[in-house]
This record gives sequence, structure tokens and C-alpha cells, in this order.
Amino acid sequence: MLNLGEEIMQRLDVIAGYSKAGPGVSRFPFTAEHEGALTLLREWMTKAGLEVSLDDSGTLIGRREGSETSRTLLLGSHQDSVPQGGKYDGIFGIVLSITCLEYLKHQQLPYAIEVLAFADEEGVRFPTALMGPRALAGTFDPDVLGMQDKDGVTLTDALQNFGLEAENIVALKRNSDDILGFIETHIEQGPVLESKGAPVGIVTAICGIERWMVKITGRAAHAGTTPMDLRYDALAAAAELISYVENLCLETEALVGVVGWLNVVPNAVNAVPGEVDLSIELRSSTDQVRVNAGLGLKAFLQQLADRRGLTASSERTYSQSAVQCGGELSDRLEEAAKAIGLKAPRLMSGATHDASAMSDLSRVAMLFVRCLNGVSHHGDESITSEDAGIAADVLIRFLEGFE
Amino acid sequence: MLNLGEEIMQRLDVIAGYSKAGPGVSRFPFTAEHEGALTLLREWMTKAGLEVSLDDSGTLIGRREGSETSRTLLLGSHQDSVPQGGKYDGIFGIVLSITCLEYLKHQQLPYAIEVLAFADEEGVRFPTALMGPRALAGTFDPDVLGMQDKDGVTLTDALQNFGLEAENIVALKRNSDDILGFIETHIEQGPVLESKGAPVGIVTAICGIERWMVKITGRAAHAGTTPMDLRYDALAAAAELISYVENLCLETEALVGVVGWLNVVPNAVNAVPGEVDLSIELRSSTDQVRVNAGLGLKAFLQQLADRRGLTASSERTYSQSAVQCGGELSDRLEEAAKAIGLKAPRLMSGATHDASAMSDLSRVAMLFVRCLNGVSHHGDESITSEDAGIAADVLIRFLEGFE
Repeated sequence: MLNLGEEIMQRLDVIAGYSKAGPGVSRFPFTAEHEGALTLLREWMTKAGLEVSLDDSGTLIGRREGSETSRTLLLGSHQDSVPQGGKYDGIFGIVLSITCLEYLKHQQLPYAIEVLAFADEEGVRFPTALMGPRALAGTFDPDVLGMQDKDGVTLTDALQNFGLEAENIVALKRNSDDILGFIETHIEQGPVLESKGAPVGIVTAICGIERWMVKITGRAAHAGTTPMDLRYDALAAAAELISYVENLCLETEALVGVVGWLNVVPNAVNAVPGEVDLSIELRSSTDQVRVNAGLGLKAFLQQLADRRGLTASSERTYSQSAVQCGGELSDRLEEAAKAIGLKAPRLMSGATHDASAMSDLSRVAMLFVRCLNGVSHHGDESITSEDAGIAADVLIRFLEGFE
Repeated sequence: MLNLGEEIMQRLDVIAGYSKAGPGVSRFPFTAEHEGALTLLREWMTKAGLEVSLDDSGTLIGRREGSETSRTLLLGSHQDSVPQGGKYDGIFGIVLSITCLEYLKHQQLPYAIEVLAFADEEGVRFPTALMGPRALAGTFDPDVLGMQDKDGVTLTDALQNFGLEAENIVALKRNSDDILGFIETHIEQGPVLESKGAPVGIVTAICGIERWMVKITGRAAHAGTTPMDLRYDALAAAAELISYVENLCLETEALVGVVGWLNVVPNAVNAVPGEVDLSIELRSSTDQVRVNAGLGLKAFLQQLADRRGLTASSERTYSQSAVQCGGELSDRLEEAAKAIGLKAPRLMSGATHDASAMSDLSRVAMLFVRCLNGVSHHGDESITSEDAGIAADVLIRFLEGFE
């Protein structure tokens, strides 16, 4: 067994230094911290024998040619973090890929490889994200270039200050025929692999998401003077809805859902709640399952309101389709794991990734790495060097066997 | 049938002018607005042939002597309001009583009568209330005199600025043997009489109250990456508890309860709730019913937490015993209503009243008057002059027949 885990972890510790002050890692696109991270990534790419370039969407690209074809396998992830995030989300997939290619530096492979370090997946600085993969896939919307960050800097100006030309982004579109696939390695950001005792897993699909905002309007009333049978309690109705969401998701294969946000009016110890606003989020690897669940919830809410004499409204405020991974790339990742004696479980990705946008360009696969307690987007984000090493072994086996 | 309703409503409109600026009525104890209201009440008491005095707890007293005994029947309620409250809560019972005694001015009655206009029942200015009735009942706690309002004025100083001597309050205690009872007329502040089509009702008991603060601690998690069976969702657990409270109260005679206040952490659309704090308030006319319900809820919460792998804590933060009304005074009120052709339903009072504290001095009874939509503590508080007139008729019949 190889041991690149220590090398990967050391590099991640160093690059975590490019962060705004404060706890955890805060690295946003087109900032001094981004520039600092790119300096290191350029150095490591060069050391790995890769030819380095920066495209006009801010994606740092390290490329090696193939011995037989110029068709290219793409690896990578994003360099940016959430505010006060961790040392692994995104950047791990870049550093791991570079380190694996350094290991394979003197080994000929028939196909070309690029490691892609995307600028912005988290969407923290500007109210848009995934610019890099969208540029490659030809789905980039130039309208977002006018968006401003909290200091009033437009995305166009931020790119220019970074030495990039916004007007060139549309031309970055790749030809699908030239691309063999995109493999993103990422920490799981959830507890599944940990609960199964597995260092790595293979993603079946990046789930689709929909969000609903629900308003339940009853009648605020004095909690002492209003008999139970003359109440129109919006929170008691909401409680039924919350239980319904939970039970529906427990009973439905490949569906998760949550009421994560809830606001009560007037929210007083001695007042029957008159109004509740709440959010429902549903995620599924199968779009039809998710859509059916959403419509089922909407119908249940109406029944509930009618039965209780309340009014209720619901609006689907967001919707995003699932991206299937699976296929040959995933099968090959599974074989690579098996070759080093590992059973890599299949699991759904509940979060969105660069691979979501890359799926418009080519087939995609994702290798997930176990993280401590499922914690992510926080300074406590943690993986072991052993697991990093195992992920590297799997990726190297995959690359060696790929054709 | 008499018609004092118009007179009572006109007086209530005039006295409502003694309010701080803003919507509704805002009249707090020992303020210029309180002083203004007392000026009117003094005038009306004098016109009714009552001898007027102000005791050192701020209770304005109008007294008439009896032809046969100095034993005294007490009538009245409180002059103060909540912030932006209505024109009827409290003050109605005072104005109605004075107006009835004006009607009876030239009619001899064997017993003495006092109308009491208590300074403070709502507890808005100082974090204490019911000083007037407690003084009479001998349950006044002098420790509250050091309490401050939001401007740092102590209760002692507020009394002094109003021309009152705090040190004399303890001596206001009456002898129970001298008191025939206390009758408080009050708007219902709930929808029961309206739903029954009854202008007035007779209170069976002022319910006891207990409040619980509950904390449910689960584990905040990413709502996409955490499978349903690895979640510890504090809000889903809270939903079960809310439904349990509602069902318990629906199924239990003479028990009402509510989860009125609820706070979710982190309260984000895409986060499994990690922590929920909520309040449970229970009220019953029977203390044992309420206490059993509270203990049942505590046990249910623990089972719920155990079943879901969460932790939960609950603390009873407030408890107040029920006060039984009923008895001869209530029977006589019922007969008085019957004499004018009315069936006055019996109902529980869900709110606390001056009568609660007066019950430590003597037997008490309450006559409730129908209010619009059960609304109270709001500028929309409303009663009709017809119902005010009916309540006056009932009280006059009661006083004429009482011995």
C-alpha cells in the first residue's frame, strides 16, 4: 500500500494558511487568499510535471498529455471555502489529485489528464457559484457578471483585478468528445461512511433539491380564556406537518427531508400561536420521488388546514434536478478500491458539487472520503491521513487502469 | 328592563382618554393617567353617594353604609391596562359597579358596599401585581417595594410621588369576618359566551396555571448529507411533544394547554435542527388535573428523548393554584340573571383576576360579560352597550336580593 496520506495532509495544512483571519478557513474567490492558494497549487502542479495555466473563469489547470490520445480525463474540485469553514471541503480533491499525479509523474498513461482547481463552488462572495465548471460545460450565464459582492465590486471587476477577462469566459466551453469524464474526490460531509466503518465510498447520484415555504394562518388567542375546541392553533397544525414530513421521508426510499426553519407569531408563553412560517426541504437521487413527495406534502397541508379551519399556503421556491453518477467510471472506482482490499459502499450525495455542473459536459463520478462525525463547513472538519492515503491509492489504481 | 348600558359605555369612552399616546389604552399604575382616571372615578363615586378614600396601596374606595350591619360586600376590579390594551379589561367592572350603585343611591340595603378600584392587576410597570387586593387580604409582600420600573423608579418612590405611604400598606389588612364577599364583573376575554349566544356568564373557578420550559437537544446536521436514520432532529421531536400536549388537553376535562413559544437552533432551511426550546403552559380549574398533566408531559418527554436518542430537560418555572368561585354568591348571580329572563352559563376563567388574590380574604364570585371575537388586551377589545346594560341589571338584582 502506498502512503501519500501524510504528504496530502501536510499540503492541506499549509494551504489552509491562506485564509482570512478568524477561526477555521475563510477563502473566497478572486482575493489575496485565493491568489496565495494558487501560488502553492502552481508549485505543486509543476512539481508533478503538469503544465499550468489559469483560465479566465479563475480555474487553475494542470495538464499532462497522454501517450495515445489527446482525449482528457478531468480531476479536481474547488479551492474556496465557506466563511470559517474547514481545511478539506473542496481543496482536498485538488491537492489529492495533484499528489497522485506527482506519484504517477514518470508513468506513461495513454490518455491526457487535467487537474482543475475551480475558483468558486460555495457561492459565498457573489450570489452565484460554479462559474468554472459551467464555463467548461457551456452553461455559463454572462448575466451573472454584473452581480456585486457586499463591497459593491462586480464579478467582472473582481475577475479583472485578478488578471482575468470576463468576456473570454464563454469561449472556454470544451468539446464533449474530447473529455473522458470528470472525477471529483471530496469529503463526504455526512456520517454514512463513518457509520459503515468505510474509509471511502462511491456516489450513486448527486441528489436533486426542492425547497418550499409554508405559511399556516390560524388565530392568535389568549391561551387561558380560549377553550381547546375554539382554537385555531397554527403551531399545533405545523407540528402535524413536521411529523408528516419526517414520516414520509423515513418511509420513502432515497428521500430525505427536513423542516429546518420555523417562525412562530406571536411566540408568547401564554398565547395560542396565530401564525407559523416554516421551510420544507426535500432531496432525492430520483427526481420523480422528490417531486411526488412535494406534491403529496402540498396536498396534506391543504387537508390539514381544511380539517382545522386554518388557511395555509405553500410555494416551491427552489428546485434543482438530480445528477446521476454511477456508470462505468463508478464501477472502475469500485474495482480500484477492491484491488486494495476495500469494499467501497455506494451512497447518495446530499450536497451539490462541481460535478453537478460538470455533468453537462461529460459523465461524472465522485469518490467520497470519510470525515469525523459528518461535520463539514466548520473548523472542526476532520479526516485522517490514513483515509487520505487510501483515497489516493484508490485514485492511483483507477488512473493506472483507466483507458 | 333597566338601561344603564349607554351610561356605562359613555363613561368608559371618557375614561379611556386617560391613556398614554398611541393606539388603544395604556394606563399604568401611579402615573398621570392613573391620577386622571381617579379624578373621574371620584366624581362618579361621589355622584353615586359613596364616601371616597384612597388607600396606601393605591386602591380608590367608594363606600356606602348598610342599614343593619357594617359587614361589607366588596365590588370592583382594576383601573390599569396592558400597553395598547382595550377600553374594558378591568375598568369595566369598576364603572359598572359605580353606575349600579348610583342607580341604587336612594334605596336602602341592609349591608354595606364598597367599590374598589385597584391600581395594578396587569403587572406591566413593576414586575409584581395585585398589590391592592393582597394588601386587603394580608398577603402583601413588602419585599416587592424595592422593585424598579424601567426608569429605575422603585415602587416605594412611585407610591410616594402619588401621595401614598408604602409603610402603611401592611396595615390595610381587613378582617375576614367583616367581609361578605367580593364580586368582580369583567369582560370574558375569551369566545365562550359569544359561541353560546349568552350576554353574561358565571365563573366556576379561576384556573390554576403552570408553565414549563423544555429544552430538547439533538444534533445539528447537514440536511442533505445526513440520512434520515442517522438524524437527531430536535424539531421533529418537538413536533411530537406539541401534538401530545394538544391531544392531552383535548381529551382531558377542564384542562387547556399550549406550546406558545418555540425557538429553533440553528433555524436554517438546510440544517437538521439541533436544539429546540419551547414553553408549555397548562391551566385547569382543578389543581390535581393540572399537576397530573404536567407530570404526564414530563414523563412523555423523557420517553420521547430516549426513543430518539436525544436529551431533554424540563423545568416547571411557574405554578399558581386554582381559585374556586361557585358557592352561594354564584348561585345568587345565576338567580338574578334568571329573574330577568336569562340563562347565564357557567364557565371557567382562564385568566387571573383581582378575585384570585381577594379569595384569601373572602369568598369571591365573578360575572363575565361577552366580548367580541374573544379579543382582549388589544385596542379592538369590544362589548355592546346592550350587554353592559344586562350585566348592570344582573348586578342590581343581585344587590337588591342580597342579605
